[in-house]
Amino acid sequence: MTLDAVLARIDTTLPEALERLLELLRIPSISTDPAFAPDCARAANWLVDELNSLGFQASTRPTPGHPMVVARHEGPGRHILFYGHYDVQPVDPLALWDRDPFDPELQDTAKGKVIRGRGASDDKGQLMTFIEACRAYKDVHGTLPGNLTIFLEGEEESGSPSLVPFLRDNADELSAEIALICDTGLFADTQPAIVTMLRGLLGEEMTITAANKDLHSGMFGGAAINPIRVLTRILGGLHDAEGRVTIPGFYDDVDELPEAVRAQWQNLAFDHARFLGDVGLTTPAGESDRTPLEMIWSRPTGEINGIWGGYTGDGFKTVLPGQAHAKVSFRLVSRQDPDKLREAFRAWVRAQLPPDCSVEFHGHGASPAGTMAITDPAFEAARRALTDEWNRPAAFVGCGGSIPIAGYFKSELGMDAMLIGFGRDDDQIHSPNEKYDLECFHKGIRSWARILDRIAR
Amino acid sequence: MTLDAVLARIDTTLPEALERLLELLRIPSISTDPAFAPDCARAANWLVDELNSLGFQASTRPTPGHPMVVARHEGPGRHILFYGHYDVQPVDPLALWDRDPFDPELQDTAKGKVIRGRGASDDKGQLMTFIEACRAYKDVHGTLPGNLTIFLEGEEESGSPSLVPFLRDNADELSAEIALICDTGLFADTQPAIVTMLRGLLGEEMTITAANKDLHSGMFGGAAINPIRVLTRILGGLHDAEGRVTIPGFYDDVDELPEAVRAQWQNLAFDHARFLGDVGLTTPAGESDRTPLEMIWSRPTGEINGIWGGYTGDGFKTVLPGQAHAKVSFRLVSRQDPDKLREAFRAWVRAQLPPDCSVEFHGHGASPAGTMAITDPAFEAARRALTDEWNRPAAFVGCGGSIPIAGYFKSELGMDAMLIGFGRDDDQIHSPNEKYDLECFHKGIRSWARILDRIAR
Repeated sequence: MTLDAVLARIDTTLPEALERLLELLRIPSISTDPAFAPDCARAANWLVDELNSLGFQASTRPTPGHPMVVARHEGPGRHILFYGHYDVQPVDPLALWDRDPFDPELQDTAKGKVIRGRGASDDKGQLMTFIEACRAYKDVHGTLPGNLTIFLEGEEESGSPSLVPFLRDNADELSAEIALICDTGLFADTQPAIVTMLRGLLGEEMTITAANKDLHSGMFGGAAINPIRVLTRILGGLHDAEGRVTIPGFYDDVDELPEAVRAQWQNLAFDHARFLGDVGLTTPAGESDRTPLEMIWSRPTGEINGIWGGYTGDGFKTVLPGQAHAKVSFRLVSRQDPDKLREAFRAWVRAQLPPDCSVEFHGHGASPAGTMAITDPAFEAARRALTDEWNRPAAFVGCGGSIPIAGYFKSELGMDAMLIGFGRDDDQIHSPNEKYDLECFHKGIRSWARILDRIAR
Repeated sequence: MTLDAVLARIDTTLPEALERLLELLRIPSISTDPAFAPDCARAANWLVDELNSLGFQASTRPTPGHPMVVARHEGPGRHILFYGHYDVQPVDPLALWDRDPFDPELQDTAKGKVIRGRGASDDKGQLMTFIEACRAYKDVHGTLPGNLTIFLEGEEESGSPSLVPFLRDNADELSAEIALICDTGLFADTQPAIVTMLRGLLGEEMTITAANKDLHSGMFGGAAINPIRVLTRILGGLHDAEGRVTIPGFYDDVDELPEAVRAQWQNLAFDHARFLGDVGLTTPAGESDRTPLEMIWSRPTGEINGIWGGYTGDGFKTVLPGQAHAKVSFRLVSRQDPDKLREAFRAWVRAQLPPDCSVEFHGHGASPAGTMAITDPAFEAARRALTDEWNRPAAFVGCGGSIPIAGYFKSELGMDAMLIGFGRDDDQIHSPNEKYDLECFHKGIRSWARILDRIAR
């Protein structure tokens, strides 16, 4: 009956939990932009104060980048580590936000109450579901649940440069028996899910240089090579007519989906027309011989995430620029090796450069894909807890996003992870007007209370 | 002997002429950016004050955009109209300038003294050569030369939207017997030249829209179409492997060069290795079966002048953007019709759009190519005057840039134009660190004195 008491406590204290989340959301902890480094530190300190007030032994840990937050509660049972990240994505284009991204509020919408603001869903709202579940547990039991470590990162949105060294340096402290990662979503907005398959990510930035300065397109146009022309020709050939990436060897280490998994996915009620329709699209744009779920869960991609060169302001400037730039990323699956593919991409670009053009590359993050072992009984326990809370069977699913932490927990600490989250497809994470449904926040807290009740003892 | 006196006066008063130019260069009259409209007005007023002080009847004339400057001196002889423009190009990327673009100064360089600053060459330095020639003439003669109108525009760098209506509304006042246009350069840096062939210009801006907002490339990557991918594929196909523009019908109205003109150009000592080498290039990048002079003077081009989309800031953002943009321009020759080609470009783009993508176009300037009639004796008189000043035979040449005013003088006012200027290929117009050689400024003033001595009587 104590679970019921914890759940009741969660219900009655929801307004206070919401106020705490709004306070955290007001801190603009954008990790990719060095200008916001003090705000990242502020968010870390805010969390340390919260966790200490709950009875954790919490502290920030310096890194060459933004600090880590580590909080420990020694108790009975299996050692469980919870992971979330307190940093958020940049907010541009700011003009497309309906309000200041860092002045969050609860809003009434046609679909219900939402918490609006940068990080509401990714990942501050999600990580607070776990902290609030711990708080309610303590309110009822007088102590925190089980044998817990909470580990919060501040560089997830900028490639996690400090993560692996930190895991290695603190392996003893952070090696639990299983990890809980809260940075994913419900399946198709309504069905609780545990992610067991994650895509990896490879990020590259490239600059093509032609002339040693910007030129006048009247004086030089026709005779001087235009690096934007070169960049568009190369990147315009990144996919073939069937939507396949054209880099030689790109698919060498991509496994076909096991038949059993394919069958399970076919039973999922994935409405791809709605999935695309919600963002104004109708037609799956990936490999023409794959289903939409394969496109986003089990097939690799190549995307141009940013491109710029020449004059991009108001009006017109007949410039023939000296340089052109792009940011390109690849979602990886199966055994695709990020380092090997980084070199393959660079070689593919270099082989296409015309005379007088050179290219410089700047590597961003690289993480392989991850596949969880679901034999640990915690997976089944969590699946049941989620099914109880949401009144729909929880599913083991894939995830198109890259959550490198799961791979690093496995490779660095030998620790399996359960990825459980409560985001919805329309949360607009990484986009203007990000939100988190109040229902997801509330039932997310309740879900963790149920999961902790089953596994943290 | 009065010509000698005028030339001597120019030599002794050069420091004061330079100070006046620096004063004009300090006014940031960037016409394409509305934020600088007050500065454009300030430049126009500065010129009106100068011209009135010389004895012209000068005034600014309002337009829907930036004001025109018109100055009149009634006198004997043929009515001659001088044209220049007081507006300048934007200055980005500002970081590549060695000093504030609007804090000009005289600098000593390995190649001699240069006037450094935005507009030093294009076109404030050039237009001031004519005004200073008039000043020296008046100092010696006590009156301005001949029967002159000076007409200065403030929208040349932003497509001249007010120009044609203004010419039409003021046709009686502005219709002279011949026009002098000072917005071109020396041939190969050392040989005086009169431009008799100008390319036209067609500017287009395009926005491709896919999803109705920016998406997360993990959640949607693979299934959702990326508009940057579409944009690069389309624009990457703007040229074929031989460097020809692939838009259907693009070359329909392009005439081959007359044999006599081709022969004259072959006699010009054009050092294309140096022309390209000065900007760090080696290989002509245009149509593979054309000479470099043809590429820049008598063949049309397609250029991507700007491209942008997605995340372009520091770090990395795995965004799948909703929109991608480009600014594209075409240099036109012969009888190519800008309006017809604008539609051909748009149809070519639309025909390549995949499902779920739409395109919006925004038209920028459009002007046809121009070819001058060189039978007017003023052409030969000016050629001789230039030959006297520079001790090298002046040449009739082509110009790759678009100076639409020459075409409009012909089409709207029935007036032929002589395009004479003193810029050099390394002036870096439209680029960071624009300069004008002090020698060009000085000998440019002297050149106009010689030309006026022959034709303004």
